[in-house]
Amino acid sequence: MSLRQGDMTRILVLNPNSSQDVTASMDAALELVRTPGGPEIVCETLEEGPAGIETQEHVESVVLPLVRHFESHPADAYVIGCFSDPGLALARENLKKPVFGIAESAFHMASGLGRRFGIVAIKKGSIPRHMRNIRALGLTDRLAGDRPLEIGVTEMLQTERVLARIVEVGTELRDIDGADVLILGCASMGGYRGEIERRLGLPVVDPTQAAAMRAINHLTLGYRQAA
Amino acid sequence: MSLRQGDMTRILVLNPNSSQDVTASMDAALELVRTPGGPEIVCETLEEGPAGIETQEHVESVVLPLVRHFESHPADAYVIGCFSDPGLALARENLKKPVFGIAESAFHMASGLGRRFGIVAIKKGSIPRHMRNIRALGLTDRLAGDRPLEIGVTEMLQTERVLARIVEVGTELRDIDGADVLILGCASMGGYRGEIERRLGLPVVDPTQAAAMRAINHLTLGYRQAA
Amino acid sequence: MSLRQGDMTRILVLNPNSSQDVTASMDAALELVRTPGGPEIVCETLEEGPAGIETQEHVESVVLPLVRHFESHPADAYVIGCFSDPGLALARENLKKPVFGIAESAFHMASGLGRRFGIVAIKKGSIPRHMRNIRALGLTDRLAGDRPLEIGVTEMLQTERVLARIVEVGTELRDIDGADVLILGCASMGGYRGEIERRLGLPVVDPTQAAAMRAINHLTLGYRQAA
Amino acid sequence: MSLRQGDMTRILVLNPNSSQDVTASMDAALELVRTPGGPEIVCETLEEGPAGIETQEHVESVVLPLVRHFESHPADAYVIGCFSDPGLALARENLKKPVFGIAESAFHMASGLGRRFGIVAIKKGSIPRHMRNIRALGLTDRLAGDRPLEIGVTEMLQTERVLARIVEVGTELRDIDGADVLILGCASMGGYRGEIERRLGLPVVDPTQAAAMRAINHLTLGYRQAA
Amino acid sequence: MSLRQGDMTRILVLNPNSSQDVTASMDAALELVRTPGGPEIVCETLEEGPAGIETQEHVESVVLPLVRHFESHPADAYVIGCFSDPGLALARENLKKPVFGIAESAFHMASGLGRRFGIVAIKKGSIPRHMRNIRALGLTDRLAGDRPLEIGVTEMLQTERVLARIVEVGTELRDIDGADVLILGCASMGGYRGEIERRLGLPVVDPTQAAAMRAINHLTLGYRQAA
Amino acid sequence: MSLRQGDMTRILVLNPNSSQDVTASMDAALELVRTPGGPEIVCETLEEGPAGIETQEHVESVVLPLVRHFESHPADAYVIGCFSDPGLALARENLKKPVFGIAESAFHMASGLGRRFGIVAIKKGSIPRHMRNIRALGLTDRLAGDRPLEIGVTEMLQTERVLARIVEVGTELRDIDGADVLILGCASMGGYRGEIERRLGLPVVDPTQAAAMRAINHLTLGYRQAA
Repeated sequence: MSLRQGDMTRILVLNPNSSQDVTASMDAALELVRTPGGPEIVCETLEEGPAGIETQEHVESVVLPLVRHFESHPADAYVIGCFSDPGLALARENLKKPVFGIAESAFHMASGLGRRFGIVAIKKGSIPRHMRNIRALGLTDRLAGDRPLEIGVTEMLQTERVLARIVEVGTELRDIDGADVLILGCASMGGYRGEIERRLGLPVVDPTQAAAMRAINHLTLGYRQAA
Repeated sequence: MSLRQGDMTRILVLNPNSSQDVTASMDAALELVRTPGGPEIVCETLEEGPAGIETQEHVESVVLPLVRHFESHPADAYVIGCFSDPGLALARENLKKPVFGIAESAFHMASGLGRRFGIVAIKKGSIPRHMRNIRALGLTDRLAGDRPLEIGVTEMLQTERVLARIVEVGTELRDIDGADVLILGCASMGGYRGEIERRLGLPVVDPTQAAAMRAINHLTLGYRQAA
Repeated sequence: MSLRQGDMTRILVLNPNSSQDVTASMDAALELVRTPGGPEIVCETLEEGPAGIETQEHVESVVLPLVRHFESHPADAYVIGCFSDPGLALARENLKKPVFGIAESAFHMASGLGRRFGIVAIKKGSIPRHMRNIRALGLTDRLAGDRPLEIGVTEMLQTERVLARIVEVGTELRDIDGADVLILGCASMGGYRGEIERRLGLPVVDPTQAAAMRAINHLTLGYRQAA
Repeated sequence: MSLRQGDMTRILVLNPNSSQDVTASMDAALELVRTPGGPEIVCETLEEGPAGIETQEHVESVVLPLVRHFESHPADAYVIGCFSDPGLALARENLKKPVFGIAESAFHMASGLGRRFGIVAIKKGSIPRHMRNIRALGLTDRLAGDRPLEIGVTEMLQTERVLARIVEVGTELRDIDGADVLILGCASMGGYRGEIERRLGLPVVDPTQAAAMRAINHLTLGYRQAA
Repeated sequence: MSLRQGDMTRILVLNPNSSQDVTASMDAALELVRTPGGPEIVCETLEEGPAGIETQEHVESVVLPLVRHFESHPADAYVIGCFSDPGLALARENLKKPVFGIAESAFHMASGLGRRFGIVAIKKGSIPRHMRNIRALGLTDRLAGDRPLEIGVTEMLQTERVLARIVEVGTELRDIDGADVLILGCASMGGYRGEIERRLGLPVVDPTQAAAMRAINHLTLGYRQAA
Repeated sequence: MSLRQGDMTRILVLNPNSSQDVTASMDAALELVRTPGGPEIVCETLEEGPAGIETQEHVESVVLPLVRHFESHPADAYVIGCFSDPGLALARENLKKPVFGIAESAFHMASGLGRRFGIVAIKKGSIPRHMRNIRALGLTDRLAGDRPLEIGVTEMLQTERVLARIVEVGTELRDIDGADVLILGCASMGGYRGEIERRLGLPVVDPTQAAAMRAINHLTLGYRQAA
């Protein structure tokens, strides 16, 4: 039941918005976790998803299509590639395979890297969603702060301006809120991770990498699902 | 700074007691996390360690020898192979490399697998040490219970009797304390993990596997150390 | 903006499962909160809902239809008549009116009636959903216990057997878990409330009554919505 | 035991200071919660009370007179009209009717309106009393801040200066302390509530209204007292 | 301002019930904390107090007489000799000297002696008072349990029956609730302390001793009062 | 087993660094707690200790020598005179006598003097050690802040500059972090205590005084050790 050389295991990472650019950005960030003999990691795009997931309406609208996509695309583990973790409870209940949300995985990874994490959010409107998720996970006292870039998801790939803004927000999280580890609060910021770590001197968690790594851990060690 | 194919990275796992049998048991449990192209994982024994680490005197007596051993044996990451995590703070402060204790790694892994973990301890006397560690990590509310086998570390490898006793204690942790994930509270119980998972129907964390996996995660994703 | 005599205010309570019997049971329980000159309280049934909401699939499937129903049926305040509070975040974000879930309202009401509440759940499978909701609301330390009847939603109206079972479960919540107030964990149990209070000697919260009362409070006092 | 049309139920609200102006202010604020067919809500003044309740000596001096007043004035529910909730434990133990303090009722109401409440206190000296109350109620993590106006209770009715000062303090609670709901920390500020909500854009809780509403809820739903 | 040999310092311990037997029991328990050259420790009885303090009415009725007694009897520090800590907030606010309640002092002392304390209460009716006090002090997570003897305060001095009952209740606190330190929840049980420690093998805190010791600490070290 | 006049009891306070000046400073601070007829309080220096204990290496290097020193120097109670509490768990497990660390004793004493304490640390590098200790003791919510002087241990006795710097840091702890009691985070600052109390108007805890006082309490009241 564990993952050994020779097995053909497969992790399916689904971007529930319809932006191919975001999927490509996730795919590039995952290059780091791919190893020869390790699981195949495939990134797919939910075609019926909205251009970006910015409202609760966007979140709810992708829940059923996302789980239907998982149910019709066999894999050994699944990753939901959106920082609102849409459909996580449903996918866990319906599938008999491990499923990981990128937000919960980032919170978990960051909890092992430092005492209190700071979140670089995209838009202010998503912060209440993050808070509900963090409270439901029992991690409230590990949160240092959550601050928005106020940049649209689709603008996230214009590197110079975005990088400067992430560094600005990250500096506030570190120096005002007391974060000793940062989380990139969106699936599309992975390309900035290395540069942000260097400039801010803190570990920086890309949520898609964190979730894929957690899927690999789970498959490698063959953990039984909690009931 | 991240781990890619072709790199010759090395994780050193040190058993701070002098029992070669315990080291061999850890080595066998780690077979699961070794992958072709992945890091070399080496298990060593601290020759000056006591036969088993059962008292606070044993814990304190290995702190300096263990860190000296690490300092003179270069590796990319280090694992302290004792469920009391001896020398963890010192190793982290002295070395410029990632260091993981098997207890803290098991607590962290279990926190991602279920809501509340139960610990199968070896002896009653180690439970206050576990409690101090869990409180210092801020994980008190994730602990369901900690129950001792009352079997000596060196007897841990007599499989039939030990397995029956672990199942008995694990059943109490699950049914009385409400644990939905179990932790094997010693470096020498890895060989029982699969059978216990099957009999109890819960995910079971071997701490040595959890720590080695965490070291691999860290090297793979190239996280900067928290200050 | 507040509710005074002469205003024609209206509270819409929507049962998101398609059982007319459940809607009728809610309607009867609400008789207690209707007053002359007070708001009109209307109970409606979501026709496209499942027969009962027992799985996460059921929960997710009613989110969008429920909010669409609210959007096309003007009212001054809305109540979501299912103990999983489906669509609450979305309804709050989309509508410009107060929206209340019956579970969160029951937890809130019970927190003002005693120190620790016990939940009489219908089925075991809904308990993880309750836990996520309670944790997200920051009320974990007010929960004494959550125990299932293991009776189907549609069987809930066969009074003799059901009443005996509720009393049995309520007794465990009171005497084993230490609850000093009970919550009926379903929209269809309101008819048993008086008898359970008498037999167990504790205050008992019907969630539909609690939510409607909270809506009346809100309209009466004219509170502005939190941002 | 529940409140229905035709019943002649009565809620007695007692101002334990001797200021008729404060009683009149409370009475005016309660106009909002009076409905035709609803309970009669009567505001009385404790003649032997001090001019204002600003010290612990004032608080303790009214405990017995207040409870004696309640015992000799039959009602269906009682409200203690002072933000220090003097005599609440005694009144609950002695009377066989529901009793509500305006401070605890405001904290409870605010907990259902937002995540973290800010308190507009009258004088700095009352803040330790508020803190003891909030801690005893287990609501510490819902408190954003508590800031004093430093205006005497009897000056509270000079509207222009007081209103400006409340807005100033409320702005600090919102913008510095992060409150998303405000509580007026005195029985005499109800007249300012509407204007403050408008200027600050947050829900504002008048404690006397909150307590009277809670009494109505209790009578309407006929809850049994917790043991 | 500190206590040195030669100073004539005086600690006044007031029993707010009128039982001379209880005062004599407290006086005997304090023999242990009297040292040559140390402060004079005087035990007095509040003559207007009730025979025993068992109800909230008793508690409230002694608040003002107790503080008046303190105000008219000069001392360097004051101890309130009743496990309900009546008048503590008022005495602290009015007097310019250190004041200690025996319950809060016992909770504090016990927190330094073990992880979780058990309280041997006299009567069930006082437990909600203990809970409010413990919550207000922020010590909820240090409480293992609170179990009543159900013996009247004035019967507390009939040693054989009372001792057997205390041991019985203490055994439940230790073995069922997990207490590792016990608190005698009344001013009149000091005479049993030594025997209970011997029989149960746990440290046992007499609250009057704890409070007097704390007063001595305070005078000896000359701490300034917190604002 | 308790301490009475005529007993020749002895408390051994060990400075685990080799600085005689620090030992002399501790000895002077303890003058306040010595009383005629009270226990003999002896301060000794661990000759093999480092000049100051500033790193985790220093901490670990003194654990075994310190406990060996205690084991070979009989006393009735022991105090570990370093704010990192080195060897506390080991000394408690090995000796059959009460042992107190000065840091844990200061945290405990401060918790009884105010709501939230501020720590005046020597160097930034020791703050993570303080945090681990505070978390393991379950006192996280009593900590207001921990701010470093950034002065070497051996420079601590140059009074003018050091005093000014302590006042500066203490002011920040009081006014920015909200501390209402201060702790001097080193064994060598006792000489400044009185002046700091006067200038800042807050109670100030010298940890060595706190630990010696706690040892006296323990011996005086004859508490049995918790298991």
